[in-house]
Amino acid sequence: MSQIDNAAVSAHLSHVRIVMVNTTLPANIGSALRAMKTMGLVKLVLVAPKTYPHPDIDALAAGATDLIEQIEIVDTLEEAIKDCHIVFGTSARSRTIPWPLLDARPAAELSLKAVATQQQEVAVIFGREDRGLTNEELAMANYHVTIPVNTDYGVLNVAQAIQVICYEMRMAAMEFTAKIADPEAKMHVTDDVDMQWDEPLVTHEQMEQFYPHIEKMLADIEFMDPKNPRLLPLRLRRLFGRIQLDRMEYHLLRGIFSRVQALNNGTWKKSKNDEDQH
Amino acid sequence: MSQIDNAAVSAHLSHVRIVMVNTTLPANIGSALRAMKTMGLVKLVLVAPKTYPHPDIDALAAGATDLIEQIEIVDTLEEAIKDCHIVFGTSARSRTIPWPLLDARPAAELSLKAVATQQQEVAVIFGREDRGLTNEELAMANYHVTIPVNTDYGVLNVAQAIQVICYEMRMAAMEFTAKIADPEAKMHVTDDVDMQWDEPLVTHEQMEQFYPHIEKMLADIEFMDPKNPRLLPLRLRRLFGRIQLDRMEYHLLRGIFSRVQALNNGTWKKSKNDEDQH
Repeated sequence: MSQIDNAAVSAHLSHVRIVMVNTTLPANIGSALRAMKTMGLVKLVLVAPKTYPHPDIDALAAGATDLIEQIEIVDTLEEAIKDCHIVFGTSARSRTIPWPLLDARPAAELSLKAVATQQQEVAVIFGREDRGLTNEELAMANYHVTIPVNTDYGVLNVAQAIQVICYEMRMAAMEFTAKIADPEAKMHVTDDVDMQWDEPLVTHEQMEQFYPHIEKMLADIEFMDPKNPRLLPLRLRRLFGRIQLDRMEYHLLRGIFSRVQALNNGTWKKSKNDEDQH
Repeated sequence: MSQIDNAAVSAHLSHVRIVMVNTTLPANIGSALRAMKTMGLVKLVLVAPKTYPHPDIDALAAGATDLIEQIEIVDTLEEAIKDCHIVFGTSARSRTIPWPLLDARPAAELSLKAVATQQQEVAVIFGREDRGLTNEELAMANYHVTIPVNTDYGVLNVAQAIQVICYEMRMAAMEFTAKIADPEAKMHVTDDVDMQWDEPLVTHEQMEQFYPHIEKMLADIEFMDPKNPRLLPLRLRRLFGRIQLDRMEYHLLRGIFSRVQALNNGTWKKSKNDEDQH
């Protein structure tokens, strides 16, 4: 692995961003930057940080000042991930609703494969120091990612978790860079995700128009009570979040939702020569 | 990987010790203990530490106090590794003497294989914060181990390096534990499908009832012409074929299709107190 082209690895890793939500301790932001820089990641997005800027960030990020200049600050998680194709939420194992869950290593392999073969944008979201991500935030992710730890002891802090994730991202980037340089080289990576795709895949932002549409349609036909939707919206996100729709599929499904709505409110009628089809 | 026996993993990892030489900052010892504990390693050997004991160690090792009690303090590196079979020295890439050099991952795989199959003892030696290990100390190692990092930036600090090494040791221990539990299991395979799921996934057979249902529904609402469906059935199969629906999702979607059909043929009416929702 030592002969890998560092610039090519960095180019791949530039498509992987770290997102930190409501971070309280500046030291954790500094440590994150240092962890990112050592592994070759460059893009940190802070969602409504509690303390920013702060001298501790600069102190701990010694040597990574170029990354400080590139930090993006946004108000909402939504903004942080809107142009991303694959979004990971970091999470402990117990959650309200099960979600596609990957260990750090296969998550990194999946990410870098998507970057290397389809120039996708990847985000990994880290939550608050004390209570992580909310269920609502976790539901914005396509996958949840976890780092296997000693179950008798518990959890990594956010800086340690970012360290391990960035390390795995780099390892995966090196594998894919080596594979591109030498297509005959064998890799440990599964080829399941090796799909050739004709249509561009939709972004997170487009999916944020998709979910309200399907929910409105289901409310219209009274399949879902908008005042008490229970787990339905979450289940829909989990389901469609793990497909990664392409653009044509996206428009196909939205077309179906619109047709059902039109049928429901009477703006669309069945054709006159319709026989009973049932 | 989630069904791994944590006790068996810990038993393997008890044969892997971390050795820190002439450490100056107590915080680094505390961080090392925390990194070890989260990954299931238990044995730390300090060779002539500069500052020991120190309250910062206890503070940073919060929750890992059992490891503090097991710390071994020795005067020489020789003593720290005398009963070991495999010794790794951590090192940056430029060294006076070439030595067998492994990346962290293959080093961990080699270590845990030796532990699992031959009950060998493994040591990983970390050097001083400022100047690492001397050539003489490096020469006591069987192998040198390095963590692949961004070559434009440089090195991890000792706490970060210990974090990554301990993580790789745990990953390797989990693989070998799984392999021993199920010798037929292939390693490195398709972790992508290794997702945690609460509900059973539907079978191919069930999906063969799903597709006719969605197609019939789309024909009913004249979204699809059953006499000339073009690529639509194929697109639906490609789309839903790559999700692997679970049983609950399957029934949810079929419930939606049935509601749309009932709405369409008049067997289901909107509730009376319905206001215009549009």
